[in-house]
Parts: sequence; C-alpha cells; structure tokens
Amino acid sequence: MEKNEKLEKMKMCRHSLSHVLAKAVKSIYGDSVKLAIGPAIEDGFYYDFDYPQFSQDDFGKIEAKMKEIINKNEEFKRVELSKEEAKKLFKNEPYKLQLIDEIPDNEVISCYYLGDDFVDLCRGPHVENTSKLQSYAFKINKLSGAYWKGSEKNKMLQRFYVYAFPDKKQLSEHIAKIEEAKKRDHNKLGRELEFFTTVDYIGQGLPIMLPRGAKTIQILQRFVEDEEERRGYLLTKTPFLSKNDLFKISGHWDHYKESMFVLGDENKDKEIFCLRPMTCPFQYQVYLNKPRSYKDLPMRLGETSTLFRKEASGECHGLIRVRQFTISEGHLMVRPDQLEEEFKGCLDLATYMLKILGLYEDVTFRFSKWDENNKEKYIGSKEEWEKVQGEMRKILTDLKVDFYEADGEAAFYGPKLDIQIKNVFGKEDTIITIQIDFQIAERFNMYYTDTDGQKKLPYIIHRTSLGCYERTLAYLIEKYAGALPLWMSAEQVRVMNITDDTEDYAEEISKKLNQFGIRNKLDVRNEKIGYKIREAANYKVPYMIIVGNEEKANNLISIRGRGNENLSNIKLEDFISRLKTEISNFK
Amino acid sequence: MEKNEKLEKMKMCRHSLSHVLAKAVKSIYGDSVKLAIGPAIEDGFYYDFDYPQFSQDDFGKIEAKMKEIINKNEEFKRVELSKEEAKKLFKNEPYKLQLIDEIPDNEVISCYYLGDDFVDLCRGPHVENTSKLQSYAFKINKLSGAYWKGSEKNKMLQRFYVYAFPDKKQLSEHIAKIEEAKKRDHNKLGRELEFFTTVDYIGQGLPIMLPRGAKTIQILQRFVEDEEERRGYLLTKTPFLSKNDLFKISGHWDHYKESMFVLGDENKDKEIFCLRPMTCPFQYQVYLNKPRSYKDLPMRLGETSTLFRKEASGECHGLIRVRQFTISEGHLMVRPDQLEEEFKGCLDLATYMLKILGLYEDVTFRFSKWDENNKEKYIGSKEEWEKVQGEMRKILTDLKVDFYEADGEAAFYGPKLDIQIKNVFGKEDTIITIQIDFQIAERFNMYYTDTDGQKKLPYIIHRTSLGCYERTLAYLIEKYAGALPLWMSAEQVRVMNITDDTEDYAEEISKKLNQFGIRNKLDVRNEKIGYKIREAANYKVPYMIIVGNEEKANNLISIRGRGNENLSNIKLEDFISRLKTEISNFK
Repeated sequence: MEKNEKLEKMKMCRHSLSHVLAKAVKSIYGDSVKLAIGPAIEDGFYYDFDYPQFSQDDFGKIEAKMKEIINKNEEFKRVELSKEEAKKLFKNEPYKLQLIDEIPDNEVISCYYLGDDFVDLCRGPHVENTSKLQSYAFKINKLSGAYWKGSEKNKMLQRFYVYAFPDKKQLSEHIAKIEEAKKRDHNKLGRELEFFTTVDYIGQGLPIMLPRGAKTIQILQRFVEDEEERRGYLLTKTPFLSKNDLFKISGHWDHYKESMFVLGDENKDKEIFCLRPMTCPFQYQVYLNKPRSYKDLPMRLGETSTLFRKEASGECHGLIRVRQFTISEGHLMVRPDQLEEEFKGCLDLATYMLKILGLYEDVTFRFSKWDENNKEKYIGSKEEWEKVQGEMRKILTDLKVDFYEADGEAAFYGPKLDIQIKNVFGKEDTIITIQIDFQIAERFNMYYTDTDGQKKLPYIIHRTSLGCYERTLAYLIEKYAGALPLWMSAEQVRVMNITDDTEDYAEEISKKLNQFGIRNKLDVRNEKIGYKIREAANYKVPYMIIVGNEEKANNLISIRGRGNENLSNIKLEDFISRLKTEISNFK
Repeated sequence: MEKNEKLEKMKMCRHSLSHVLAKAVKSIYGDSVKLAIGPAIEDGFYYDFDYPQFSQDDFGKIEAKMKEIINKNEEFKRVELSKEEAKKLFKNEPYKLQLIDEIPDNEVISCYYLGDDFVDLCRGPHVENTSKLQSYAFKINKLSGAYWKGSEKNKMLQRFYVYAFPDKKQLSEHIAKIEEAKKRDHNKLGRELEFFTTVDYIGQGLPIMLPRGAKTIQILQRFVEDEEERRGYLLTKTPFLSKNDLFKISGHWDHYKESMFVLGDENKDKEIFCLRPMTCPFQYQVYLNKPRSYKDLPMRLGETSTLFRKEASGECHGLIRVRQFTISEGHLMVRPDQLEEEFKGCLDLATYMLKILGLYEDVTFRFSKWDENNKEKYIGSKEEWEKVQGEMRKILTDLKVDFYEADGEAAFYGPKLDIQIKNVFGKEDTIITIQIDFQIAERFNMYYTDTDGQKKLPYIIHRTSLGCYERTLAYLIEKYAGALPLWMSAEQVRVMNITDDTEDYAEEISKKLNQFGIRNKLDVRNEKIGYKIREAANYKVPYMIIVGNEEKANNLISIRGRGNENLSNIKLEDFISRLKTEISNFK
C-alpha cells in the first residue's frame, strides 16, 4: 500500500472511531449530550460535545463502552437525505441543524448510521463495519474546552482528544514519545529551570525572562550582533511604535491591522499609534536618511528588534507564540545584480547560526508563495509575483536548497524562504525566514541613482539570522532537554566546598574563574555536599568544581560534568583552558 | 550687594523691560494686540501677545521703539484697584479679564502705569523710572508660538523671547555662549553627524538611531551590563506592556496614568494594556518567582529596559525628552541592615559611570523629597515619609554627598537622590536617579523569611547606573561637541589610500584592524586625499590612517588624529597597541 493510501485509511478508521465515541457517550449520558463535530487528527481524533461537565473519571467508562460497541461488529450505513429530511432527523441536535443550514442547496446531504440506534451527520467515508476497528488501539488522552467553530463568541464545548493507532505497539510508542516530549517541553522545563515565568496580572504571551533566560538571550544576542558586524551589517535601533501614517504607507494598516496593537481611537484622537509588528518600515528610514547611489548598495542593516503581535490569550504558548518578542531582524537593500549573491549571504548566515546552535539537522526549507485565488491578501500584480517567484526559485535551485513549495504562505509583499522546525509535540513553526520584497521600496520612494544616472528601486531582502530569541530559546531548551551547551549557559560552572575549612579555597577558585570570564556561582552554604550536587544537577549546570581538604592541600580541583564525567585532582588552569576551548568551539 | 539681591534686582529690571516691550508693541500695532503675560526668565524675559502674525522683520522696529520709551525716562506708577475697577480698566483685554477673575476676592489687585498711556495688570515690583534701564542691554531673540496658560486646549499666542542683561558686555557674552551652545546642540549636531534622525510620519519623540548612534548605544549598553554583572547584578528581561491590573497594584494606574500609553477602552475591552513607563513592577516578578529568605538578600537586578512616556508632541526634544527610551534600569531588594551599604554601592556605580563618561564634573546632587502640601500625589503617611527621608538624609550625609534639597520632587512611592545635569542651553534634567521605596513591596506581597522566621518586607532601591542611553548620548554629544572618546566611537579609525596603487595596502590594514577589534571604515574611493580627509574630519572620526606609495614601500603608516596630531611612518603594530591602551583606559 502506498504511504498516502495508508494515511487515508488511518484517517478513515480514526474518523469511524469518533462516531463510536459519540455513540458511547450518548448511550452513557443520554440525549442531553448534544453532538458537534469529530474529525480525525494527526495522532487520533477528537469529538466536541455540549454537556454540562465531563471529567477525567469518565474516561475508563467511555473507553469500555467503545470496545463493547466495536465488539458488536456494528455496521456503518450511509443514507442520503434532502435538507428537510435531515432537519427532521436531527431536530434535537442544534449544532447539526446549524451545519445542515450551511450546506449549499445543490449539495448531497449524507448521514451515517452506526447500528440502528445512532446516527451522525457526516460526509464519510467510514469503514463498513466496526469489526474493521477490532485491532485498533485507542486511549482518551485529555478533555479540554473548545469554542464551537473556534470562535470566542460561541459557546464553550467539551472536547475529548483520543489517541488512535492501528495497533497497540504503535499506540504505546506514541504515548512513550509524548511522555518524553513532555519532559522536554520548554513551557514546563523552561519554568522549572527558571528560564522564564508568566504572571496572570501581566498577561498571557508576555513572558518574564528570569536571570537564567535573560543571560542566555544576552549571549545569543551579542553573538548575532558581532557575527553580523563581521559580515558587513550596520546596526540600527529604531522605535517600537509609530503613528499609523507609517503603516498606511507600508501597507500594514490595510493588510495586517488585525494583528497589531493600536493605541487611540481614529474617531477621537489626533494621533493614532501602533506597536510595530515588523521592523521593515522603520529600518527603511535609515536608508532614506540621505540620497543613495549604486555605491551605497548593498546596504545591510541589522537590529535587535522588539515586535508586538496581537495574539488572542488562548493562542499564546510559552516562548513560542507570544505577544512581544525580540528578533535578530534585518533588511538588505540590493541592486538587481546583487540579489542572488546577497540572498546567498543571508542563507549562509542562517545556516551558520543553525549549525552553531545544533538545530540545523531539525529544519526543513519551505518556499512560501502567494495564493493566486486570494489576490486581495497581497499587493502587486500576477505578472510581478510570477517574475519574483521565478527568480526566487532559480536562486534556491542554484543554491541547491532542498526545499518544498507552499501556496498562500508568502508575506503580503513577496515570497519567502521559511526555515521550519517542529517543537517536541510535532507542531511546526518558522524559526528563520528570508524574504524578497519587490513592492515596498516604491511606496517609500527608496530610489537610488544608478551608474547611468537613472533613479532605480532596490530589491529589499527581509531576513533574520537566528529568528526570535524567545522562540529559538524554546527550541534549544527542548532540543537539549534544558542542558544548554556550555557557551550559552548562563551559569557555566558551580563551585562548591565540602567542608567549612575550604570555603576560602572555593572563593579563590570562583574569583579566578571570574578573571577568565567563566560565569560561575559559588555555593559555600553550610549544606551537605550531596545536597549541593543534586541542586546543581537539577539546574543542569554544565560543570561542578568540588573542593575539599585534599584538593585544597594540593591546590587542585575535582570536576563533575553533566555527562557523568568525574575528574579528580586536576589543575584549575588546565580546566580553565579546557573550558576556553569548548566555549570557543561553541560546545 | 548680595548675590540674591543682585538677582532680584535683575529680575525686576527684566520684568520692567517686558512692560516696555508691551507698550512698544501696542504703540506700533495698535489696540488689536491683546496682552497676555510677560515674566522675567533666566536670560531675559518673554511676553505673550494675541495678534494675527508678527515676523522677525518686526524685531528692529520694536527694539527701536523700546529704546525711545526708555529714553523718555517714563515713570512706573502703581495703582491699586477693586475687582470692579480692574475689570473696567481692562475691558478690552480678554486675557487680563480672565486673570482678574481668578484673583481671590480678599487679594489686592494692582496695576502699573508706564507713562500715562500704557497700563498693565501686574503684581510688580518695578523700577521707578525707565531711566534706571538706560544701561540695560537687550535683544529680541526669537518669536515662537505658545498656548495661553500652556494648554493645547487654549489659543496659540505669539511669544517674544528677549535677552536682557545689565550691560552690553554681559549681553554679548551671553549671545556668544548661545552661539557656541548651538554648535554643540545634540539636536542639531547629532543629526548632522548621523547619530539619529526623526521622521514626521513616525512621530515626535521617537528617534531613529542611525548606525553611528545605535553602535555607540550598543557599546555603552554592553559596558553597563558587564560592569553590573561584575558587581553582582543579575540580568532580567521583562515585557514592555502589561494588563492594567499590574499598574493598579503598583499604584501607577492611580498616580501616573496620564503619562502612560493605554491600549483599549475600559468600557469596551476585556483586556486593557499599558506600555510601561517604569520597569519596577515587572522586575519584582523575578523576586516573586519563588519564596525568598534573608539569604537571598540583597538581590540586585539589572535590565536594559525600554520605557514609554506619553509626552505631548511639543514637549519632545531630540534625544533628551522622548516618548520611548532605553534605560539601564535596576532594583535592589535589601534588608533594612543592608540599606546604607547597598545605597552606597549604587552611588559608587553611578559615580564610576559618570567619571568614565567624563560627565562627573558637570553634575549636581538633588535630594528630592515629597511635598507635604500635596499629599494626594504620594502614597504613605507623613510619619513614614519623615522616617525614610530621615534615613536617606543620614545616608547622604554619611557618604559626604554635596547635595541640596528639593521639595515636591520625590517619586510617588519614596524620596530620590537625583543626579542633575544641564544641557548646552542650561536646561536642567535628571541623568541618574537612586530612589528608596518603602511602599511598593507590601503591595506586591514581597515578604521574605528573616533569621527569626518572621515574614518581613524588604526596602527596594530603584536606580539607574548610566541613565537613559538616548539622553546620556545627547549629553555626551554636547559635552564633546560630537567628538566622542575613542572607546565609544562607532568608527574609531578611517583607513584611506592616496593612490590607486595603495588600495590593496589600505585593505590589508583595515583587515588587520578588524582582527584586533578596532572598528574601522575603509575609504578607497577614487577621490582626492584632501576630500577624503575632510569628510572623515567632518564626521569627527578619532583617527585616520593614510597610506601612499612611501608607506606601502616601507610597510608603515601615517596617522592623523582629531587634535591635529600628525604622525608619519610609524608601525601599524605600534599604533594598534596605542589604540588598545587608550580604549582600555576609556579615552
């Protein structure tokens, strides 16, 4: 069987199981349960019900009833109906009635019986008989609230998420994978290890970086700024808000307003300000500060930039989906003859960063194009889009990028190369993006004088080198299960003494480490050494230096590394030079 | 004559001159000119008139008329009136009528005649006769718009600013000083030297830091962050906005709302957000992340923090008064027994920073206290304020700070030590502040467990080590007339070749400088060397390396320093080591 066929079959089985769940729930809780929808998803299916309150205690009972139904070898029977007939059949199911009303008049309405006593409005397809589901393994994973049709304006329903796989082995493998993922989940681990926290009265999506997280971001930020400077970028620092006049020129006011925080009321206030969702039109002002000629190009501008996006509370997630974030942002103004070379430079920088961070093996490359059927979402003509997408495809092919194409994922001003990564739970997001913009320069009159004396418009490359610091930190925490590489660890070494007599020696070592720029914390508390070691291990500190009377007498140290490495009685100088080497190699 | 007496006399003369100006204006332009007010100011006086439009061309005419009046030796004659009489006398002067209405009923109303044909509502005092003004030297400086009573809601009047001094010498010295100040004015020079710019469609008070300014701020920021780390500060990174719930707890919502950017409408929206005007309540969350004991104190938290203040468009000024700025912010949570030592540490850090920047000699120390007559502006009782102000006075005295006291300048939560500095035009602002807060810890339940097991509240010290980066940069530009010290210069060296043959040699030198971390720009354009030198000199680049055939042949370089220093045929290695020494000494 082809992979696609297999997937289709699995989807059908999962969806059939969702009917089994609905029948089970109805048969246990009666007709006061109202049915909404129950589609297949990546690892099983879900079903939304309107009912006062289920609880986790119900899971066993429901699963048992589902097995009972499956074991009865009940038939799935398709019946086609007129709108009138359908409305009559589902007269006690308000959500189904709403769905029926939304079906266009010329479309077939179908429903599926499961046995004689349960029917659900459904397009199908389904397995013919529950006997086909006998070997299937499933487990109710969780219960959570979900708005009808995903809108906050509608009623909150109750959703059962169920894992479902063709056999027990696959199910238990999946559960094990999820358990492992939970351990790495940055939204849990990142809080436990004190990288960040959130506070209700401040708001969702507004993480507070604790010293460990703030220091790591500082290290990454300096690394990016320095590397960009080496590659000919000029640093800028532009404001985080602007009058909406700017966004009217850039097109954000028309194409992006819903995602922006707006201050003031257009009907009342003289000045309306917006928190910026992107750095672009601000950084262009640097280019626009004086007349430009072909000699000024390429102009590479970089900025450690803070951006704001108006995400709904419920959409926010840890450090990955937030309302405020800091990004290694940048724009390159380039002549047409420089486009390929500069695009290559951006890709090279991004690749370099991903390799240094150890994330390169985890990413995929998505060529994000416009959607011809949704022209109103974009600026520019079809001819222009086809031209620039052609150029981008040529560049990607020339650079031998192993990319796939995605329609409708472009920015409103141009196509993108999105470097995609998945979090521990398999959810995919963009970590780095490189975009070609052939539109906005004209809106801001960004003409330069070419060799022939003519005024011309540059291409603009929008790009990031390491993405958003918060999001990238999240992926790093998940990748390394919190044990970040030495060079980016806020605390690289913890120095601890075994006895009171050696407190001064431990202090001396800590000072020496400071002199060499090794970030360390001194733990000379009057606690058992086992306790101190456990605490440092819990925080996943890369190295511990442990000193007792013997070490002090010989002017040596003992080391404990994260990978269960133990070294006794070595010279501090030797250890420092080892650390220096590891750090300079980005270990 | 005592200094104070002299000042009082000068004030009286200046104010008398303002009547002379008003009489002159009336006599030239007639009764359609309406009088507002005309007080003495630091370098003369101003007078506000309501009149369609004066212009700079009127200055000479008005000055001549003023001299004519003075030469007539006219008398200033005080007359006291009832409210009714005053209203009758000023029936054609709407602004005076408004002022008369505002005078409490039991107060004496006085007016001053100047000769028989001009009268002005005025408290006085005045000189007896214009003969006393004979020796006075004055000059109309400028004409500008000014709202009646300083409020945007009122009509825009026209204000004449006039310099006035006891003699010609003092006047011309003052004008020379102003001319010099204009050359150093960061708001002019900072733009010319491409430190920053502003853009109308972005908004006032939202400067765009161009690469030269952004790089300098990056250098200062790293310097501060590193120095704070050395002094035991932990870095944090907290969000720039919050639900207003946070500010309700902190007291900002009640005491500072007018100065805050607020997003959303309380009557409509579920969540109201505010852009933060201060970092305090955000950084406290780091302390609050877990239970604290006396062992955790002092806790020193530092952050490179961006803040927002809702300044009126007209209030904004260059980099000094802005709507968004970045500050080296920090808070120390300390036990009562640690307060003096930690305050001293903050003052020591601020002093160190000011000395490194070369600004220490220019500052004064202001002990800013509450205003007992305006209790509603503050939180806490009289007893609490007196206690903490007493403690602060003791600390300042113990530390031998040469401070002066100012009532009504405290923060709403506690007294401050404000380190004050004047800009080139003599306008004073705060560059650094260290504050003792005895109020807010309780609002946020910031208890720690003391040695005796009791829950206690820490003092909080609010402080900055180098102030706002934008504002400090402004003072630095003015102090050094744009020629910033080498260590903080974005471009430290410009390398230029004299002939095409030496382009490769210049490139080699630039690369070598890069290897040693010397920030340099290569100018190998096909332009005359004089042109290149002038351009680098205009940008006040600290050093130029100039190479021609002779230098290349001998593998040497020639240097041109900012202070007209010229060195020929020296070794690059020697020059690099000299630069390194200067930089490490903050030269």
